[in-house]
Amino acid sequence: MSTLHNIALKNTDNGFTLSFQDRLILSHTVETPCLWIGAGEADIEMFRGNFSIKDKLNEKITLTEATIAAQSAGWAIRFTRGDTVSATLLVGTDKQGRLELKLKNDATSHNRIWLRLAAQPEDHIYGCGEQFSYFDLRGKPFPLWTSEQGVGRNKQTYVTWQADCKENAGGDYYWTFFPQPTFVSTQKYYCHVDNSCYMNFDFSAPEFHELAFWEDNATLRFECAENYVDLLEKLTGLLGRQPELPDWVYDGVTLGIQGGTEVCQQKLDTMRNGGVKVNGIWAQDWSGIRMTSFGKRVMWNWKWNSELYSQLDERIPHWNGEGVQFLSYINPYLASDKDLCEEASRRGYLTKDAHGKDYHVEFGEFYAGVIDLTNPQAYEWYKEVIKKNLIALGCGGWMADFGEYLPTDTFLHNGVSAEIMHNAWPALWAKCNYEALEETGKLGEILFFMRAGYTGSQKHSVMMWAGDQNVDWSLDDGLASVVPAALSLAMTGHGLHHSDIGGYTTLFDMKRSKELLLRWCDFSAFTPMMRTHEGNRPGDNWQFDADAETIAHFARMTTVFTTLKPYIKDAVAQNAKSGLPVMRPLFLHYEDDAQAYTLKYQYLFGRDLLVAPVHEEGRRNWTLYLPQDSWVNAWTGETHRGGEVTVDAPLGKPPVFYRQHSEWADLFDTLRHI
Amino acid sequence: MSTLHNIALKNTDNGFTLSFQDRLILSHTVETPCLWIGAGEADIEMFRGNFSIKDKLNEKITLTEATIAAQSAGWAIRFTRGDTVSATLLVGTDKQGRLELKLKNDATSHNRIWLRLAAQPEDHIYGCGEQFSYFDLRGKPFPLWTSEQGVGRNKQTYVTWQADCKENAGGDYYWTFFPQPTFVSTQKYYCHVDNSCYMNFDFSAPEFHELAFWEDNATLRFECAENYVDLLEKLTGLLGRQPELPDWVYDGVTLGIQGGTEVCQQKLDTMRNGGVKVNGIWAQDWSGIRMTSFGKRVMWNWKWNSELYSQLDERIPHWNGEGVQFLSYINPYLASDKDLCEEASRRGYLTKDAHGKDYHVEFGEFYAGVIDLTNPQAYEWYKEVIKKNLIALGCGGWMADFGEYLPTDTFLHNGVSAEIMHNAWPALWAKCNYEALEETGKLGEILFFMRAGYTGSQKHSVMMWAGDQNVDWSLDDGLASVVPAALSLAMTGHGLHHSDIGGYTTLFDMKRSKELLLRWCDFSAFTPMMRTHEGNRPGDNWQFDADAETIAHFARMTTVFTTLKPYIKDAVAQNAKSGLPVMRPLFLHYEDDAQAYTLKYQYLFGRDLLVAPVHEEGRRNWTLYLPQDSWVNAWTGETHRGGEVTVDAPLGKPPVFYRQHSEWADLFDTLRHI
Repeated sequence: MSTLHNIALKNTDNGFTLSFQDRLILSHTVETPCLWIGAGEADIEMFRGNFSIKDKLNEKITLTEATIAAQSAGWAIRFTRGDTVSATLLVGTDKQGRLELKLKNDATSHNRIWLRLAAQPEDHIYGCGEQFSYFDLRGKPFPLWTSEQGVGRNKQTYVTWQADCKENAGGDYYWTFFPQPTFVSTQKYYCHVDNSCYMNFDFSAPEFHELAFWEDNATLRFECAENYVDLLEKLTGLLGRQPELPDWVYDGVTLGIQGGTEVCQQKLDTMRNGGVKVNGIWAQDWSGIRMTSFGKRVMWNWKWNSELYSQLDERIPHWNGEGVQFLSYINPYLASDKDLCEEASRRGYLTKDAHGKDYHVEFGEFYAGVIDLTNPQAYEWYKEVIKKNLIALGCGGWMADFGEYLPTDTFLHNGVSAEIMHNAWPALWAKCNYEALEETGKLGEILFFMRAGYTGSQKHSVMMWAGDQNVDWSLDDGLASVVPAALSLAMTGHGLHHSDIGGYTTLFDMKRSKELLLRWCDFSAFTPMMRTHEGNRPGDNWQFDADAETIAHFARMTTVFTTLKPYIKDAVAQNAKSGLPVMRPLFLHYEDDAQAYTLKYQYLFGRDLLVAPVHEEGRRNWTLYLPQDSWVNAWTGETHRGGEVTVDAPLGKPPVFYRQHSEWADLFDTLRHI
Repeated sequence: MSTLHNIALKNTDNGFTLSFQDRLILSHTVETPCLWIGAGEADIEMFRGNFSIKDKLNEKITLTEATIAAQSAGWAIRFTRGDTVSATLLVGTDKQGRLELKLKNDATSHNRIWLRLAAQPEDHIYGCGEQFSYFDLRGKPFPLWTSEQGVGRNKQTYVTWQADCKENAGGDYYWTFFPQPTFVSTQKYYCHVDNSCYMNFDFSAPEFHELAFWEDNATLRFECAENYVDLLEKLTGLLGRQPELPDWVYDGVTLGIQGGTEVCQQKLDTMRNGGVKVNGIWAQDWSGIRMTSFGKRVMWNWKWNSELYSQLDERIPHWNGEGVQFLSYINPYLASDKDLCEEASRRGYLTKDAHGKDYHVEFGEFYAGVIDLTNPQAYEWYKEVIKKNLIALGCGGWMADFGEYLPTDTFLHNGVSAEIMHNAWPALWAKCNYEALEETGKLGEILFFMRAGYTGSQKHSVMMWAGDQNVDWSLDDGLASVVPAALSLAMTGHGLHHSDIGGYTTLFDMKRSKELLLRWCDFSAFTPMMRTHEGNRPGDNWQFDADAETIAHFARMTTVFTTLKPYIKDAVAQNAKSGLPVMRPLFLHYEDDAQAYTLKYQYLFGRDLLVAPVHEEGRRNWTLYLPQDSWVNAWTGETHRGGEVTVDAPLGKPPVFYRQHSEWADLFDTLRHI
């Protein structure tokens, strides 16, 4: 046995074990090997961001023999199978002392790797980006590929079946805008993989986790900690952290409105007259609209449409003076039939097809060119579009939408296969937005929010939103799904998350009910940002100004939210400083409580609030779990010691508890009187 | 190049080619190899005959090098990959001069084989047992595993989705009761594999067919012919042929009736009084009933229930005197709560579980033991049950149902894994029935009919029926699906096929309409047997005696059928003699007509009738294709030379044409006057 930098490499009978800070990471014998290599041909089809991914697997070979050679700063392990196939694993530490495993197949024609990490049956696993259906990932495989998250996401639901039949869009439990090859084990280590190829992390087996890579190499990093809070600090030390949010975010709700300047003004007035705290208007159709059968779509030509939004340039400063931001919309594609696309095409800034011509993606009754973010000139040009057309106009922020649609058969300036760049794309897109803020000195003033992400989004996407929930109560694609999404992202190092109040996807027979809108509003008051969305078919959905009761409800909940401003701001600052997420799984602070590891529909909001959103229709009470502590019901003042409790949960009073001895207890006390 | 018995084995640059009678069978080089071996662990779950089958694939290794050694009667080709893995292929002919390829992995731990047969892009492929959705199998993989055929069988239909959600029973295009590793290529050869393991025949690629075997060995046989008729004669020379049908089969319809002796008498009288030709009563509930949520189920205790069927022993000879047979029902399972099962258990005749106890299969709200047909004593005992309880009672036949449900985790007397025996089971079950007839001298008098099958069913299952169609118009699981089922079985060497008139599966919102029953009746008059089924929920379905018009319709169509008796009988005799099926694909007799290879919903009935059943609701005319010949419309006398024609197709006059110069033309002429 030899040890170096906390790594213990031990020869066994016919193999070896590798441990890092006493965690068993690899265990290899001829009979129970840890490494396979192979060759496959990816068969990937995309239809509107929905992917069918198959592997035409040509070979999969167990590497049975392992020969260890010590090197100056670690070891080289050569894995072989007879005299024909081999791969090399370099074991060492990076400059920060993380365990680093570098795998490389000796023949590049072997473009598949399966690595088994040692596991214990009782381990829980969290992370892998934004996971909507599962929080504890143990027991299932998780393919990691950024895509639409699916409509329904559960083959047992009628909505999913309809979406599958109509556009192969129903999705499944692992479909996500923001996958990431990063996970946290309850052995208190994280594992992060540097690559961006298609991967499948399979946590089904009791004794190992099998990580599959569709590439001829992979670099894994591990770090350990004494507790989860420290572990997340280390993880975000590697991945980066989000800066603090603009102060205005805490001052009310951002109203999603479409239809032009006067409609915005009118709805703003209605809401403010009803006592609603409004911090902004988010008008995704600021660049104009296009009608499709899916509903009204934004015109993908990123500049102010002065016809639909007349006098917007004058109105923005006026609104700003009243504490109201104007937020717009952009994505990394350009409508093929419009002038920005024409300019990008002329400059050679679009990705190409096999014949060297511009690649146009079908987005649902229209096409768009893909801005080639790997081309430094294209990247800078697009950043200038943001600076000139959005920032200079006075936008306080925007939705930086999409990023998941890079087709695998397009050709890029940097020469890297689009199959490898596909996952990396959302983070590049985030970086482009981030730098536009940084270079104009607007970081911390302007807010953009994204749904797509990958490694790098921790640093460059300043706020995530949960994407396109259905306007329904389904576990896998409704209100409920936002909570595991936020928590799994938290365990992947991204600590700022919110969602469309009321959900978005309005298809088939789905229509947003009043109750759903109000429950979602209740929930969002206990997230770092409140923002509404009309949905893709606004006329089918209950909206924030639909009746006086709804307006009064928003008045109440925005008051709750703004009352909590100092507390939320403090939590966001902690996230910026040490990567401690704002919405946290309970086990982060109650690690000895076994039940805390199994909860996916309740969370800690900062250190001292526990929130369990009501996510079923027609309920007026709710059952939840409290870990051992002194808890005070935020609405009744009743105290609890812990365990399962059932509480009244009328609309406007979501199940929320605060810690009795919190330094914020006086602030929390005031909630009762709103 | 060396040749022997029509086999040409030729060394090429870095490989070889193997041809048989000028058909290229194998082509191997280091870069484009023909053989892979590997190791996997089958993950097979069964729920009521519906299987979820996955392979935990541990290895898949290309065998790149091939070394040929001549042997006394052929060659041994040793395939290797470096110094670690290898397999051997013995090439030779069997006693009948068929090409024989015997593959064997050199390590039994390598329990997977993938073999690529050479193909041409333009080849069509037929067979693989009873295929309901595709007739030409080119372009898709076909897993070969006997199972329920699925309810809906198309993920785009609401029925399939409901069945999937409720019991994982929706199925897919390849689900079938009767799979078989046997196919015919339009290069005019057949390929048959002797094994019974799980296989997947993938005809997707233009240049090869990839055959996957979940076993460490495989034996393939090939034969060629100048035309398809000769080829089927050779194929059935290998597999066996069905004897001629009892003469009474051609004398009318077999009425599926339940409810007891008097109900049978009453319905028989009603139908005969209405002019319907009736050859038999088929009463599946002769052994009693059990109520479940699926509907009325038969009591699986195979002996006359004299309570429900009082005086049946006297009534049978009475009916026989009137030309009416009594048909009953049996399957290879015994209801766990009844006395026959108790006896089989006491004798040790049931298959076992891992603890050596009797294995009981869940069949939908009841359990049944599996009679161990690999135990010669159990097999003989069960044959005696048939002889004593069915034959001695005077049954003219029975449905020999099921055979697909052998669980893979049960243990058998012969020591062979149930995973390997699973596919073989239906043929064993057929053999048991066949021998009961043979040993009592009743072959050709008594008729049993089966839905499940495998290699061997050609010889031992004397009549197939298409299993459980939905009572609907769907292509994949309704009336239409019966035609490709019959034709693909024909190309697999089984030439006798019929179906439940009106379909069977009555679930969800499906109810059999009058129109469907009548169209199915029209179709069945042009198959070798007419037999009705009430369906699993008789009360939801239109039945043969539901109104006077329906009875008159049956009167007309049974008259058509019985009028054709000498012609059908002759076609059945040809099938018994030379394996020329009764329902034939058009290309069997029009092999130069390219379009004949693509038709799956029309067929030749014998040599001289062309039938195109109407399989859409509400149609009163029908478009079909006639190959170049002189065709006479059976109902109008109008003649056609060939090509696409549209004809009137009222109820009772299905699109049927006869060859003008047929020796049977006078008989066919009489149809116009019925």
